[in-house]
Amino acid sequence: TTTYKICLLAGDGIGPEIIAEGVKVLNAVGAKYDTAFEYTDALIGGAAIDATGNPLPQATLDAARASDAVLLAAVGGPKWDTTDPSAPRPEQGLLGIRKELGLYTNLRPVQIFNALADASTLRPEIVDGVDMMIVRELTGGLYFGRRERFYDEPEAGVNGAPGQRAYDTLEYSEYEIERIARQAFEIARKRRNKVTSVDKANVLETSRLWREIVHRVHDADYADVELEDLLVDNTAMQLINRPADFDVVVTENMFGDILSDEAAQITGSLGMLASASLGDGVALYEPSHGSAPDIAGRGIANPLAQILSVEMMLRYSFDMGEAADDIRRAVTEVLDAGWRTGDIKGADTPADQVVGTARMGDLVVEHL
Amino acid sequence: TTTYKICLLAGDGIGPEIIAEGVKVLNAVGAKYDTAFEYTDALIGGAAIDATGNPLPQATLDAARASDAVLLAAVGGPKWDTTDPSAPRPEQGLLGIRKELGLYTNLRPVQIFNALADASTLRPEIVDGVDMMIVRELTGGLYFGRRERFYDEPEAGVNGAPGQRAYDTLEYSEYEIERIARQAFEIARKRRNKVTSVDKANVLETSRLWREIVHRVHDADYADVELEDLLVDNTAMQLINRPADFDVVVTENMFGDILSDEAAQITGSLGMLASASLGDGVALYEPSHGSAPDIAGRGIANPLAQILSVEMMLRYSFDMGEAADDIRRAVTEVLDAGWRTGDIKGADTPADQVVGTARMGDLVVEHL
Ligand SMILES: CC(C)[C@H](C(=O)O)[C@@H](O)C(=O)O
Ligand SMILES: CC(C)[C@H](C(=O)O)[C@@H](O)C(=O)O
Repeated sequence: TTTYKICLLAGDGIGPEIIAEGVKVLNAVGAKYDTAFEYTDALIGGAAIDATGNPLPQATLDAARASDAVLLAAVGGPKWDTTDPSAPRPEQGLLGIRKELGLYTNLRPVQIFNALADASTLRPEIVDGVDMMIVRELTGGLYFGRRERFYDEPEAGVNGAPGQRAYDTLEYSEYEIERIARQAFEIARKRRNKVTSVDKANVLETSRLWREIVHRVHDADYADVELEDLLVDNTAMQLINRPADFDVVVTENMFGDILSDEAAQITGSLGMLASASLGDGVALYEPSHGSAPDIAGRGIANPLAQILSVEMMLRYSFDMGEAADDIRRAVTEVLDAGWRTGDIKGADTPADQVVGTARMGDLVVEHL
Repeated sequence: TTTYKICLLAGDGIGPEIIAEGVKVLNAVGAKYDTAFEYTDALIGGAAIDATGNPLPQATLDAARASDAVLLAAVGGPKWDTTDPSAPRPEQGLLGIRKELGLYTNLRPVQIFNALADASTLRPEIVDGVDMMIVRELTGGLYFGRRERFYDEPEAGVNGAPGQRAYDTLEYSEYEIERIARQAFEIARKRRNKVTSVDKANVLETSRLWREIVHRVHDADYADVELEDLLVDNTAMQLINRPADFDVVVTENMFGDILSDEAAQITGSLGMLASASLGDGVALYEPSHGSAPDIAGRGIANPLAQILSVEMMLRYSFDMGEAADDIRRAVTEVLDAGWRTGDIKGADTPADQVVGTARMGDLVVEHL
């Protein structure tokens, strides 16, 4: 029996409810494939602020580093929303663990389950065949640059009076761009061999550096992969116009944040999309959606993105491709059989096929 | 007879072709409303680089400042694309004139012409009733902040070797946020009285300042307007999910660039969308689309966004609301009569109703 240690970060909102279903599925997979999963719970986000004052306590980092993989649910909620620069915020927990574990590659697969093709607000013929992998740089750029707020700045107020001023810094180094570009090209070779690199090179200096390095890496080592540059504003359009044309999309942190959510919405079922954050050591897996505080604690959240993040964990961290395929097949079968949570039900879903969080987890396990 | 001086900036690509149609419509309006329009042509963008080495020659700025309004077509093209930080770029002309004329408010109305409802890749019931005004801050943020590229930086290269590094700065002052917020609230009062303010306040310091100031302005002077905050990643989703729910969307420069193009694509007819850039002096009007170098010089570009930017000019700069309504009515009639340019033709548009740039301009004039 192989044993893997998994650090569980339930976080906030629906987090505890959906992560329980991820664990349920892991246990079922373990039994089937003679693998033992050992779990350590740790605090992150708002839950960690409430308990310790710190969104990322040292104990959490220690637990994550001592594990073979991290399963995260979601962080954040209105309870901790503030514009006070000095107050701790849940998102610092997430940004902090990405940085501390060096998780520079964020993979967000965007696919449509046939049974849910109708969920998209786009026309069926437009979303037909959508299958892209967004590769988002996750530890650089605006989200990690120097930032500051100044008070009583001369002329920063209205009519030249003293007032407030703030800045954030978007910074990239050559090695950060090179390593994420390599990831994108490697992934493209296992897919349809095409990379779209997104930047704003007609305005930003970081984007011009981005474009230069991506092309250098391409020409030197990946000339067999098709490469196109697309400006971020144009990409925001083309994702809606011709989503099925995209294979691998690689971009910097903030563009990736915006575009991956846009692409997710194109499927119409954000509750189905998982993500993997990889670095050179332990990796982290989480749903693409947030903590949905409005429905927390009611047992109705969709656990499938969390379950599919377990699929990614098996594939990328434990090399258990067959078990990962099993999970995807089980989820597909459950959907094909008509089972839905509230967020993915259609106008014609019979009431007795709309199930809660735990029942959805059970159904996936039954199909494993 | 009233006389208005208009500075014409044709720019690059399809620019000269479409601006000619804008002028055609202005002349027709002038004849009807006993108003004289005097034109001065000036260089901007790639055309200005080719002629003078400078994307925004002083003569152009002088001409713009001496005019009552500026009509711009589009700038840019592959001919001038470069990642060399020191090379002149067409976009600098556009950014430069925005800054020099103090055009801090960019208005991008997003509406659907009934005749073109089918052009959207979104389902008809989703785009039905879409009518929003994107208010983009246009002279601050990342596009105007300090930026630099460094070579031979210790450890910026691969494996800790010396390499390149670059940064851009996202900066906002209180007065910049306050004045754009006021614009948004004022506009909302003339529309459906709702403002969505978009930021990334869970990560960026500039966004937290943004949110604080927007709320302060709201609570003090516009408490009658409904105000909601939406994170930029969530907005990228909701624009696809429920576009008809948005009324006024206000946001900083780069988020506005990305989201306004996304919103434009939701209509399916980017070739129909105009924009106005306003400050405290002379204003500038331009199509939302780019210079389309791939179809330049063939007489097939859609001039309607340019013509609708003339509509906005009449409305905002010359207080000629009736003449502006005339243009909109004429464009609507031309579309209702089935006339199309290549970009907006449908699968069932008869070949003899697909017209070129000049003929489309003539049709609008005939309907005035
Ligand atoms: C919570 C937030 C900091 C985070 C991000 O923007 O990176 C989230 O939106 C995501 O995409 O994982
Ligand atoms: C050409 C470019 C600098 C410009 C911008 O991003 O502002 C354009 O995309 C626009 O939106 O007007």
